[in-house]
Amino acid sequence: MLPTNALGELQGIFAADALTTDAAECLVYGYDNSRRQAMPDAVVFPTAHDQVVALVRACRTHRVPLVARGRGTNTTGASVPASGGVVASFERMNRVLRIDADDRIAVVEPGVINGDLQAMLEAQRLFWPPDPTSAPFCTIAGNIACNAGGPRAVKYGATRDNVLALRAVAGNGEDFRCGTPTTKGSTGYDLTRLLVGSEGTLAILTEATLKLVPLPSAKRTLRATYANVGAAAQAVARIMAQPVTPCALEFLDDQCLALARTHGGDSIPLAGAMLVIEVDGEEGSLAASADAVAHAARGDGLLELLVAGNRAEVDALWSARKALSPALRTLSPDKINEDVVVPVSRVPELVAATRAIAAKHALLVVCFGHAGNGNLHVNLLPRDEDEKSRAPAALDELFDAVIRLDGTLSGEHGIGLAKRAFMPRAVDANALALMRAIKAQFDPDGILNPGKLL
Amino acid sequence: MLPTNALGELQGIFAADALTTDAAECLVYGYDNSRRQAMPDAVVFPTAHDQVVALVRACRTHRVPLVARGRGTNTTGASVPASGGVVASFERMNRVLRIDADDRIAVVEPGVINGDLQAMLEAQRLFWPPDPTSAPFCTIAGNIACNAGGPRAVKYGATRDNVLALRAVAGNGEDFRCGTPTTKGSTGYDLTRLLVGSEGTLAILTEATLKLVPLPSAKRTLRATYANVGAAAQAVARIMAQPVTPCALEFLDDQCLALARTHGGDSIPLAGAMLVIEVDGEEGSLAASADAVAHAARGDGLLELLVAGNRAEVDALWSARKALSPALRTLSPDKINEDVVVPVSRVPELVAATRAIAAKHALLVVCFGHAGNGNLHVNLLPRDEDEKSRAPAALDELFDAVIRLDGTLSGEHGIGLAKRAFMPRAVDANALALMRAIKAQFDPDGILNPGKLL
Repeated sequence: MLPTNALGELQGIFAADALTTDAAECLVYGYDNSRRQAMPDAVVFPTAHDQVVALVRACRTHRVPLVARGRGTNTTGASVPASGGVVASFERMNRVLRIDADDRIAVVEPGVINGDLQAMLEAQRLFWPPDPTSAPFCTIAGNIACNAGGPRAVKYGATRDNVLALRAVAGNGEDFRCGTPTTKGSTGYDLTRLLVGSEGTLAILTEATLKLVPLPSAKRTLRATYANVGAAAQAVARIMAQPVTPCALEFLDDQCLALARTHGGDSIPLAGAMLVIEVDGEEGSLAASADAVAHAARGDGLLELLVAGNRAEVDALWSARKALSPALRTLSPDKINEDVVVPVSRVPELVAATRAIAAKHALLVVCFGHAGNGNLHVNLLPRDEDEKSRAPAALDELFDAVIRLDGTLSGEHGIGLAKRAFMPRAVDANALALMRAIKAQFDPDGILNPGKLL
Repeated sequence: MLPTNALGELQGIFAADALTTDAAECLVYGYDNSRRQAMPDAVVFPTAHDQVVALVRACRTHRVPLVARGRGTNTTGASVPASGGVVASFERMNRVLRIDADDRIAVVEPGVINGDLQAMLEAQRLFWPPDPTSAPFCTIAGNIACNAGGPRAVKYGATRDNVLALRAVAGNGEDFRCGTPTTKGSTGYDLTRLLVGSEGTLAILTEATLKLVPLPSAKRTLRATYANVGAAAQAVARIMAQPVTPCALEFLDDQCLALARTHGGDSIPLAGAMLVIEVDGEEGSLAASADAVAHAARGDGLLELLVAGNRAEVDALWSARKALSPALRTLSPDKINEDVVVPVSRVPELVAATRAIAAKHALLVVCFGHAGNGNLHVNLLPRDEDEKSRAPAALDELFDAVIRLDGTLSGEHGIGLAKRAFMPRAVDANALALMRAIKAQFDPDGILNPGKLL
């Protein structure tokens, strides 16, 4: 429970309809998509920068934990108020302040939904690259907090590559602007990229200036099946080594295909591995680009290469990927979706390592994801309590394998609570000490999202 | 002069041929391309990571300033040992440790010359995007220190966008690795991008993992002249608003053209402004891409649009740009080359502001640069001592104009000594305080490149 004087101070900042301590209302702001749950003592709904400044200062004065929240689609527990305190939900601070086609920037408030922004941008033939699966629901500030990616990142980069400037309030209660609304800048330390991926532990975002990209006018979809994972991985390396970078290069292993087939039907092929590839560009050059990628996709172990000729065929080529998530969730409601990254050339070793771990712990483990970045979603699929009890040890070995393969714990989901214990394996001790030192400067009393990331 | 015990400690770390206190030898390690000069007390030539660790610790123990140096091509004084102390020249720590085409990464020591690396990469049909004019001479770690750019940045990003991981020794004497050899990563605070552009004030780099890009197989060069700067700027906005991003989009104002013509001959046209544009891609799609860009270049105020058909014509289209630098240097040996950035749409206002400043102070001021990023090199060209004495006031007003136009002090050269006094105008006070707090954590005794940037 909040100290009475802290609550009083919040009541001075937020109108009655923008502050609640009602347990039922608080409950729904205490979970995220990691399926973790904790109870905040209060939820507030800021709508203005100055309110956020006052909020942070109040929380600092009373040493109350403060967790910024988008729409709770985070998969690592980063939005869960694990230490109680105040959740600041940004759902009402959601205006698109400016879209400037000439300068290719958008200025938005933190609570804007990714998909809503994309719809507005599309009307101007622009887009913002990050396209997580949760795009219809997740917020821009949430994307920034966990450095969200998605399939397009292979060509257009993840969130970090597509944020130019921020306005924020540090945990010390001081607000600041960093970055510039330009695509180049070499004026001091890059606080902007430091905040991207910091999961609300350094500062609370109140405004973001995003880098926009012109929308290509056409897209071509290809699907390639291979005899085994190694052949598919070699195809990925060949595709990434030639100059036409696809805008999606998605990988599914044989077990994913088998599972997807149980849900999506017999049109989904059985094979050692599959790549779904998209190439975007302009009508005049798209055919040549698609040919270049198709050429690179061919090689030892290729079973079949299909190119979609119309919308229905595009949907058919994506059917295995689309059927996969419901198939996994049905099979294992408590599936553990990990988001590891290894260098592209190490993907076959990673898949082999997951197989060995799966066999050792008698667990079902499948791999799919953004192959062009080496960003695989390794899904552990426990089907009962017994299997669930064996998952943590398997996960532990998975992270060891990833580190051994020169990879890292997260490509686009972040660390949150889920991977925090593994940080000392992934990040060297001196680098961790510097991260902690930075945290202590931004947030000297540790009020911002305590217990996360570090 | 170094304290005797400090020198003794350095002699324990460096062999006699890797350490000098000879004044004549020290002299040549005390300048950079900003034409500033200062005398170091000693110059050392590290060749190994552990030596750098020992060096930083020794300098910290004895409170001796330590300035890391590539090849001194910096234009802001960032490499000048303004407080004396030790210069660490990395010219002998220059091995390319690994080029991995499958993973599209190169791992290099800090002193590798940009151009040497590009030559090695070209043999594997790869390149590293940063291409500053000094590429034949400058080092990779120098590029990282000042976040170097170049023409290609408009399509491929500057240094910050193309560094994946670093090994470094912080000013506190502790070494660390940060980042991962993967194109995605969301594992803790981004120390890698924090070090990019930090000008050797936080840590000394000992190894860098670079993101490589496949080399396009063909290029098309276009040149467009316009009646005035506004028409050219509108063309830049149109070019950047369509999906085919050129790999160079260089701007020259009318005064640059007039000057270039005095050196390069009458084939250089007189016009209100010129764009030199390059489009890269694959043979099969290049014509369509060049057409799209040419289409966007056309509009009100276009005087002439030429497309090069062969190598000689390419050289002819670049002739004005190539003739410019010698023309400027001949006219004004002490020219002041500023490196400001504004949003693309504000370029005409920036050029107009420079004209007003030039008129007010009776100075010659010309503008050229990387228009697609809004990154203009505003050159003040004092021709005598009297004009030189008026330059600082003009510069002061230029920076004010840039900030007013939502721009920033530097796009790719950095801050160093030259722009340090202007930082409080460009960066808000609370953000500057956070930068200083970060500096104090990495380098508690302020030994690394003191007096620079902040």
